[in-house]
Amino acid sequence: MVKLVALYARPADPEAFDRHYHGVHLGLVRAYPGLRKLEVTRVTGAPIGEASVRVMAEMYFDDKNAMESALASPAGKAVTRDLLSFAASIVTVFFGEVEA
Amino acid sequence: MVKLVALYARPADPEAFDRHYHGVHLGLVRAYPGLRKLEVTRVTGAPIGEASVRVMAEMYFDDKNAMESALASPAGKAVTRDLLSFAASIVTVFFGEVEA
Repeated sequence: MVKLVALYARPADPEAFDRHYHGVHLGLVRAYPGLRKLEVTRVTGAPIGEASVRVMAEMYFDDKNAMESALASPAGKAVTRDLLSFAASIVTVFFGEVEA
Repeated sequence: MVKLVALYARPADPEAFDRHYHGVHLGLVRAYPGLRKLEVTRVTGAPIGEASVRVMAEMYFDDKNAMESALASPAGKAVTRDLLSFAASIVTVFFGEVEA
C-alpha cells in the first residue's frame, strides 16, 4: 500500500480554510480514481511545545502506479489546482510505502 | 480515535538510524499500553521537490486519555527516553483526532 500525505500548517484565516477544505477540497480528493482510503486528522496538540501541523490528510492507493495515475487524471489535476488556490504556502506533500 | 504522529527528517547516518529504529525503537513503541494500531510509512518521494520527511510513525489510541496514559506509563517513558537518545534533533511529534 502506498499513501500520499498532505500536512497543512496554520492558515492565515483558519475559518475560511476549514470552510474551503471541508466544503470543497475533500470532495475533490474523494474523486481520485483508485483511492482506497482517506484519513483526515485534526491536529490538537503536541507532547512538547506547539504542533507545527494543523491538519493532516492521508490518501491510500494500492501501489505507486495507482497513485501516479490518480495524480495525473483529470480528477487529480483538479485536486492539485484547488490545493494551490487555497493552501500553496502552507501545505507539504510527500508519499511513501506503508510498512506496518 | 486519537493518533500520535512522529515525523522523522533525514538522519546523519541513515543505516544506523534504521537499525536502531527497527531493531529497538519500534519494539518499545509496540509496548505502549492501549495502543490500537501502529502504522509506519517509509517516505519515498514527493510530487514536487524532495520530501522533508523520511519516516512517519502513527500510533492510534481510543481517545486522548488513553494516549496520555500510554505516554505517562513506564513503557511510554521508555519510548520517550529512547527517542531522545537517537532522534531528538530530527523528530517532530504531534497528536490529533482522526475525523474520517
